[in-house]
Amino acid sequence: MTTATSLVPTQHGASICRGCWDQMRVPIPIRGALALPFRAFGITRSKMNPNICTICERSFRYVKKQRHITTRATILFADMRGFTQLSGRIGALELSDIVSLFQDRCAQAVWAHDGIVNKQMGDGLMAIFNFPIAIKDHARAAVSAAMDMQRAHATALDGAKLGEDGVTDRTLGVGIGIHSGDVEVGEFSSFRSDFTAIGGTVNLAARLESQAAAGEILVSAETADQMPEILGDAEARLLSLKGIEHTVRANVLRVN
Amino acid sequence: MTTATSLVPTQHGASICRGCWDQMRVPIPIRGALALPFRAFGITRSKMNPNICTICERSFRYVKKQRHITTRATILFADMRGFTQLSGRIGALELSDIVSLFQDRCAQAVWAHDGIVNKQMGDGLMAIFNFPIAIKDHARAAVSAAMDMQRAHATALDGAKLGEDGVTDRTLGVGIGIHSGDVEVGEFSSFRSDFTAIGGTVNLAARLESQAAAGEILVSAETADQMPEILGDAEARLLSLKGIEHTVRANVLRVN
Repeated sequence: MTTATSLVPTQHGASICRGCWDQMRVPIPIRGALALPFRAFGITRSKMNPNICTICERSFRYVKKQRHITTRATILFADMRGFTQLSGRIGALELSDIVSLFQDRCAQAVWAHDGIVNKQMGDGLMAIFNFPIAIKDHARAAVSAAMDMQRAHATALDGAKLGEDGVTDRTLGVGIGIHSGDVEVGEFSSFRSDFTAIGGTVNLAARLESQAAAGEILVSAETADQMPEILGDAEARLLSLKGIEHTVRANVLRVN
Repeated sequence: MTTATSLVPTQHGASICRGCWDQMRVPIPIRGALALPFRAFGITRSKMNPNICTICERSFRYVKKQRHITTRATILFADMRGFTQLSGRIGALELSDIVSLFQDRCAQAVWAHDGIVNKQMGDGLMAIFNFPIAIKDHARAAVSAAMDMQRAHATALDGAKLGEDGVTDRTLGVGIGIHSGDVEVGEFSSFRSDFTAIGGTVNLAARLESQAAAGEILVSAETADQMPEILGDAEARLLSLKGIEHTVRANVLRVN
């Protein structure tokens, strides 16, 4: 029997939008001949993740029938380390290429684990795991994506000589922060229609990222609790974070 | 004689896209009957500023005939202070309303001075002054927008009682950082087509914002030099900023 479920997409190159399917059980074709009439109405693959569509991206109220929802998710922030120093030392063209490569490599890692690149901000980005694509183990997906990011950047920096005055892979690298918990997902502006996530969980993930050195992934206790086997031997670090009263315990992961 | 210049838009409710006009001298109708055929092709008003169109927003390469350009601009970052503490104390609905109001008030202030809201990140945003709408005195435009923002938020917080345990206008407010200089404007990702600005100027503006207390506007010396009369009596503050070797002198503005 052929039902809509036979269209349920696999991880790569889904034929229907995985977000619309997971959130509404509505099959929206995003690849192949069936996608063509939808494209005529401006429904295409989303820039946040090529396996979701622009309905997920821009029509949150239609998808969820409300302005915002509270949901569990894992939030990942990544940012280039050494970028501010670098930007004073190398040419504009090189700088642009580095940022483009950074954004593209990070996005590939996020998409490979079903996350979405919700925001890109210059040399940084914010990814959401578990919305709109449902991921049972979103903490693990985010940590795996972070490991992939660090590996991709370490490989790219191996042997790279940037600038003339010794900018090396010690100063240039990526810092990542990850935290899991309840977030508010929805549209939080009357003039933009793309959804985002806000709340204390998001801010803590951002604060963790700001404390991560080049090559480090700082994972909150809430995220780490979901995957004890990977984090068992990880270094623990106590952090005083801006705006957060209590000390925060983070696990430090590195890719070697 | 009627020429395209008779359509040159005024500050509010421009009839043609001010970005396409300033960057290419091409009149793209964005309001009125002439705008209808363009809307059929998906060319509408941009979410970054209602006086520019989606060509400016998403087709940077078409507009500038290159992937990115170096241009002088003033960059403004604004962020809610006390948001992280607040997010642990009040309900999700209230939090969402506060963020929406914050984003809308800030956008109104940016648009009133011809800037664009380039990025919104939860309880923060980044605005660009002098691209794509050309502004002769972009430093002054950004500082004026910042003053408007602080006034709007101060008025909104007057008498507001948020939460039950004494969150007041002392802890909840807006911090703003402003810096002028050369920025790289363009598309820095192969999968997103909206333009942004990157480089040392952008990062310094972000760092200044991170140091601004509730109600403060930290203005760099480069920006302040463009408007000595406003900043003559402003408090000066020396800052050590992450990633920047030398001490940075900032002028502190407040709205009373």
